[in-house]
Amino acid sequence: MNLLLLSSSRVAGGGYLEHAREAIGDLLGACRTVHFAPYALASHDAYTEQVRAGLAPFGVSVVGLHQLDEPRAAIEDADVLFVGGGNSFRLLKSLQRLGLLEPVRRRVEAGALRYLGSSAGTNMACPTLRTTNDMPIVQPDSFASLGLIPFQINPHYFDPGPGSTHMGETREQRIAEFLEENDVPVLGLREGAWLRRRERQLYLDGRAGARLFRRGAAPEALQPGADLSWLLDVPARFDHPA
Amino acid sequence: MNLLLLSSSRVAGGGYLEHAREAIGDLLGACRTVHFAPYALASHDAYTEQVRAGLAPFGVSVVGLHQLDEPRAAIEDADVLFVGGGNSFRLLKSLQRLGLLEPVRRRVEAGALRYLGSSAGTNMACPTLRTTNDMPIVQPDSFASLGLIPFQINPHYFDPGPGSTHMGETREQRIAEFLEENDVPVLGLREGAWLRRRERQLYLDGRAGARLFRRGAAPEALQPGADLSWLLDVPARFDHPA
Repeated sequence: MNLLLLSSSRVAGGGYLEHAREAIGDLLGACRTVHFAPYALASHDAYTEQVRAGLAPFGVSVVGLHQLDEPRAAIEDADVLFVGGGNSFRLLKSLQRLGLLEPVRRRVEAGALRYLGSSAGTNMACPTLRTTNDMPIVQPDSFASLGLIPFQINPHYFDPGPGSTHMGETREQRIAEFLEENDVPVLGLREGAWLRRRERQLYLDGRAGARLFRRGAAPEALQPGADLSWLLDVPARFDHPA
Repeated sequence: MNLLLLSSSRVAGGGYLEHAREAIGDLLGACRTVHFAPYALASHDAYTEQVRAGLAPFGVSVVGLHQLDEPRAAIEDADVLFVGGGNSFRLLKSLQRLGLLEPVRRRVEAGALRYLGSSAGTNMACPTLRTTNDMPIVQPDSFASLGLIPFQINPHYFDPGPGSTHMGETREQRIAEFLEENDVPVLGLREGAWLRRRERQLYLDGRAGARLFRRGAAPEALQPGADLSWLLDVPARFDHPA
């Protein structure tokens, strides 16, 4: 297992994937080709071009899965899969329609396929879509996603501004509602932060850190460098009302 | 048809339902009992007490549907249904599980049941859940909701602050993504605003106004008092990629 799960593809003032360049280089290693899943955005060609430019410093070639006749077969030979951000409902529905979830999961778990996700692509690595921030613009067959880790991530995590008068739920309140229905840890990953998994080791890295939410416990602030390998052993109980 | 669809149950600095007191009184008319659907929040009893206090100025009695053995049968005799806010996925899943969508839709359309919604309750009045802001903490059988109006509402609509450095999508970007997949108007209803439908007449009212989003058109600013009856005749085409 070799995963890099970014909260966001950029941070304020920075270019696309720029803030995570070193970590991406580490994930890619000697791989020369990256397969890219552009389905979270509507314009697949333009999105693939953006990724090609973003990964240019690594000298890799980027293959857009949407340009292939048999994307499912291509996964069987791929070394690295990048699943980009956008709308996670649209992304999951596409991955389901194309039959990509099973081969991606199998090959990542076997250590044959490295996985890079950002934002919605990071949502896909969780057991379900249930902690996305996105609008449910289309209806996937199921909320079940790849499950490359056994807990949930909330990307783009942020705390409300002190002067906010907005009456909608804060991000923390939304996650508290998730915990009312599911006994599963949620890692609120701030923009600029990421998770790195290698086999049974899991670390928080990047900048800005994260907050960990668990049922019945106060939220816990986590700093870059935190060893979160223990989270791989916490049982996940979905549809388990408090 | 007699509907009052609030963006939010309160505005900054105000009490529960306070800002819409006059409009609620107008909807209630001479009705003496309000049936309340508390399913969007986890604590049904506490929520029903809150609503009882909020509607106390009208001298009505409030019946929590969750306290009844046969909520579905109760809908057949109800005069007014209030569907309160919270998590719209949890709400829709409950309404589906209890078989309430069909009788509510039928009786509201027949003019026998008045409908008051706020936030998630307003989402329920739309054809689908697809323009909610909520986290998908549970998976409903389908995103199809009541369809008491033929277009979508986005409650708690707001524009991003000018100094925001957050990289997540703005509300306007989220609605633009919805329009990429669905050719259906979306009314972004600001907190403090509401829609009032009586038969074939539909008006925007309250404070703060709304923004109307349609595929291929610039967003349109709407002021309180705007006659939106024409929106009842615009065809809705879901799963219709641009």
